Amino acid sequence: MHLNSQQIDELTLKERIHLINSITGIKPANLIGTVDNAGQTNLSVFSSVIHLGSNPALIGFILRPPGEVPRHTYENIKETGYYTINHIHPDFAQQAHLTSAKYAKNESEFDACDIQEQFLDNFIAPFVKESQIKYGLEFVEEIEIKHNQTRLIVGEIKEIILDIHPQTTDGGLDLEACQSVGISGLNSYYKFKRIATYEQPR
Amino acid sequence: MHLNSQQIDELTLKERIHLINSITGIKPANLIGTVDNAGQTNLSVFSSVIHLGSNPALIGFILRPPGEVPRHTYENIKETGYYTINHIHPDFAQQAHLTSAKYAKNESEFDACDIQEQFLDNFIAPFVKESQIKYGLEFVEEIEIKHNQTRLIVGEIKEIILDIHPQTTDGGLDLEACQSVGISGLNSYYKFKRIATYEQPR
Repeated sequence: MHLNSQQIDELTLKERIHLINSITGIKPANLIGTVDNAGQTNLSVFSSVIHLGSNPALIGFILRPPGEVPRHTYENIKETGYYTINHIHPDFAQQAHLTSAKYAKNESEFDACDIQEQFLDNFIAPFVKESQIKYGLEFVEEIEIKHNQTRLIVGEIKEIILDIHPQTTDGGLDLEACQSVGISGLNSYYKFKRIATYEQPR
Repeated sequence: MHLNSQQIDELTLKERIHLINSITGIKPANLIGTVDNAGQTNLSVFSSVIHLGSNPALIGFILRPPGEVPRHTYENIKETGYYTINHIHPDFAQQAHLTSAKYAKNESEFDACDIQEQFLDNFIAPFVKESQIKYGLEFVEEIEIKHNQTRLIVGEIKEIILDIHPQTTDGGLDLEACQSVGISGLNSYYKFKRIATYEQPR
């Protein structure tokens, strides 16, 4: 099947959304935890978390344009300056997915989706207790993608909690052993099987 | 294991690179194909391809700061305005990984890594023949992440070639059936097993 520019334009909105959302390949499945200054927590699934650099340790994620839909995650990050990113595992993937429904600002997805909060003494944002790989970030930069008004939110890692940390032979986390989860499109979840760790080519 | 900000700073560079590169979870494994105005092709593996929007169909990827290492992909995109993104599959994952070695500007990774070029009549950049899911993009925007000088390169999809297009029940590509591949850290490759497709929650 070959679609040129005109044929891509002629796809129905539903066809286009599902195809374009899955055409980049696998996406990491993460929950982002935030809190407002009044103590109201929020939790939401994101498939757009991306590595931006290791030194400093910078991580990004994509937000749809402010104003298009409620943006409790965005508002809380701007209000407090902190948030957490938490890996999703198969045993709570369905609950994690439910955080993508619309909830009122005064309702916490932790309660609504039966997910447990975990706090560190000196870090305001809530972690996900069930997650075995999680980290806390300080907001550093918001960047607008002018062509469609989405935002890249950039944060620096300040705290790392690894309940398990199996490594591959190259020193990275073994995501099969970690039982981390990926997403394709909007609603499909995958687990991983490691096929190889190659040498760094010269 | 809990690392605070100071302990993260005290990691060796190698430990930090491998941990921070794998802490976002799974990353999609793609080859980006380009050509310069003289017809010299280039191919390079990227794990930072990200969905930015479906209408228009915008895809991004991250480049390290210009000047830090040779940037043939970047130079070619700026020179011609076009590039391709091609899914990696298990049967050529090792060859694809070899494109991350350093090659001279006048040497094509297609030849050096034994990967075949494929061209469309009206699109200048080379596709990967072995890839079953691939698309051609027009460059639209370059955005600097000020905190570490990396670049987000944004393109709009103009051509889509799907040699296979199995769908999940939600209408997206089934990445297990597609035999697409993911990366963790720098050198580890994974295949996928779909665990569930959930309803869109209300």
